[in-house]
Amino acid sequence: MRIRVAVNGYGTIGKRVADAVNRQSDMTLVGVAKTRPSFEARRAVEKGYRLYVTGGGSRDEFEAAGLPVAGGLDDLLRDADIVVDAAPDKVGAENRAIYARAGKPVIFQGGEKANVAEASFNALGNYDACRGKRSLRVVSCNTTGLARAAAVFRARWGVEHWEVTLVRRASDPAETKRGPINGILPTFQLPSHHGPDVQTIFPGLPIATTAVVVPTTLMHVHVNHLRLERAPSGPAEVLDALRATPRFHLFARWEHVDGTPQVMEYARDRGIGHNDMMENVVWEDGLRLEGRDLYFFQAIHQESIVVPENIDAIRAVFDAAKDGPASIAQTDRALGLPPPRAA
Amino acid sequence: MRIRVAVNGYGTIGKRVADAVNRQSDMTLVGVAKTRPSFEARRAVEKGYRLYVTGGGSRDEFEAAGLPVAGGLDDLLRDADIVVDAAPDKVGAENRAIYARAGKPVIFQGGEKANVAEASFNALGNYDACRGKRSLRVVSCNTTGLARAAAVFRARWGVEHWEVTLVRRASDPAETKRGPINGILPTFQLPSHHGPDVQTIFPGLPIATTAVVVPTTLMHVHVNHLRLERAPSGPAEVLDALRATPRFHLFARWEHVDGTPQVMEYARDRGIGHNDMMENVVWEDGLRLEGRDLYFFQAIHQESIVVPENIDAIRAVFDAAKDGPASIAQTDRALGLPPPRAA
Repeated sequence: MRIRVAVNGYGTIGKRVADAVNRQSDMTLVGVAKTRPSFEARRAVEKGYRLYVTGGGSRDEFEAAGLPVAGGLDDLLRDADIVVDAAPDKVGAENRAIYARAGKPVIFQGGEKANVAEASFNALGNYDACRGKRSLRVVSCNTTGLARAAAVFRARWGVEHWEVTLVRRASDPAETKRGPINGILPTFQLPSHHGPDVQTIFPGLPIATTAVVVPTTLMHVHVNHLRLERAPSGPAEVLDALRATPRFHLFARWEHVDGTPQVMEYARDRGIGHNDMMENVVWEDGLRLEGRDLYFFQAIHQESIVVPENIDAIRAVFDAAKDGPASIAQTDRALGLPPPRAA
Repeated sequence: MRIRVAVNGYGTIGKRVADAVNRQSDMTLVGVAKTRPSFEARRAVEKGYRLYVTGGGSRDEFEAAGLPVAGGLDDLLRDADIVVDAAPDKVGAENRAIYARAGKPVIFQGGEKANVAEASFNALGNYDACRGKRSLRVVSCNTTGLARAAAVFRARWGVEHWEVTLVRRASDPAETKRGPINGILPTFQLPSHHGPDVQTIFPGLPIATTAVVVPTTLMHVHVNHLRLERAPSGPAEVLDALRATPRFHLFARWEHVDGTPQVMEYARDRGIGHNDMMENVVWEDGLRLEGRDLYFFQAIHQESIVVPENIDAIRAVFDAAKDGPASIAQTDRALGLPPPRAA
């Protein structure tokens, strides 16, 4: 029996989650709901996805655009076992009553407050604790990247202290109304909200985050300094551990990847859905160990990193995999992500 | 008796230092030396500066462009008491023999290695230790910004530990051959060279720096986390101390300065030479104190922050001011920088 999945909201995250659901052998995409016609709605129809009208949108508007409509959000929910809410930030919380009325479990995104769902979710971080919940919140892109790294460092060496500067992209590539295009904007929340958000996955994790926004669209970059509880034997031990962990992608020096532009060029060459980079990207050259002090950079593709996490969150709700690692392996195989290299 | 100053190299730094020298009542600008005609050479002539040919440039080329030439570098040095070397990075070291042969003291820039000069210089940091030296190196823009801050924090509360992420501008506004224009580049030197460079001013200062390059031309931004030895009574004590220090400019929340674009718009409105911002820029809103832990952002205008330091370095060489604070006050008054607000 496949899990029947509805996707409500068809923007940056929704369209990717829909495609990812569509590739899982244990799931069926019932359809996607959108408020207004757009190139993305057209593309959904071209792919054969059933299109539903949501959020006060008008069926007439879609039909005038030549896009067939299968129904409204209630129709979509009726035929689904679970809904992934990929509405804009804060709209998910407004949608909660609708999902409750339909009696369907739901996966929310990280733009919602933590209390929108029974638990916040990260596949490497807390899959087990999320089994059987009726609502989960997949944490945001930056938090997902940090939570994945936290899972590795906590388990292997322990984290005494972790400081991160998040160098954040100003807008996504297709956004044209946000800036800056030349300038650096400090985030005046000090420390930033990302640390507490990681703590929704790892309560009490000693992490402090600070953020700036910079004029790029490609990826975020995290500048990390951790003091570990136990010293790794050397940087190779850390790199081996990351290589052995799913959803980490390492670049070697000889690959000549100076920064995020080449990372995304690699992703375009690789050609996984939307040319995405769903892994935490780490440079072998960009990692330094001094005793228990670990410095490293990681790059985070804000548009796609949460996509596999949404798939695993669906499985966690139905307790449909043996465990977290099994779900991750199944998700990543279906998405075409390379398996980790055994340590 | 005015100090007669030669400026060798007339790019981003040289043209600004020449203007600044020209505004000091105790200095005379003998002339400026340049390798090739350009809009900047034309502007020097328009301002009445004597133009000399340097670095293998051709007198004919200048004259063909209609720019009168007063002589070569040797002629310029002969008439000067001191030379400010503002040649491109590393060329200063090559010029050292020329200055030695001419028997003239020299101020180098931060693009040179520390051993180019008898001492590295920062006016707030180590003016006294630099009096009477025959050669000084004004440290680079980022190092100058950090050294100014270090001078305040060391003296008032002591620094137990200091971690900085430098978010660096990719190129200067008039540069057209450097990137990136969309992307974030980690600096794979971990920690970066900036920490050791600050230690040329404050030996043993416990500072670790990490850097990324981002697509902006306006300013650098430093994301600072210090652990102080003694806790300030509150953030107001820190802000008051910065306000009472020359070459710090604070922005209040009500000024609505989101980031570096508004800082530079303020600088354009203020209209000090080249619309520069020679001070460390600190946001009152962008500073947080938790016990002895201080988080704050500062923005650094890479093109101009070292300009007043060059003037003070000249005075240090000739021991021509009562002390560092006197030189700083004299420099800043002549440049039109506002005086600090008494604490």
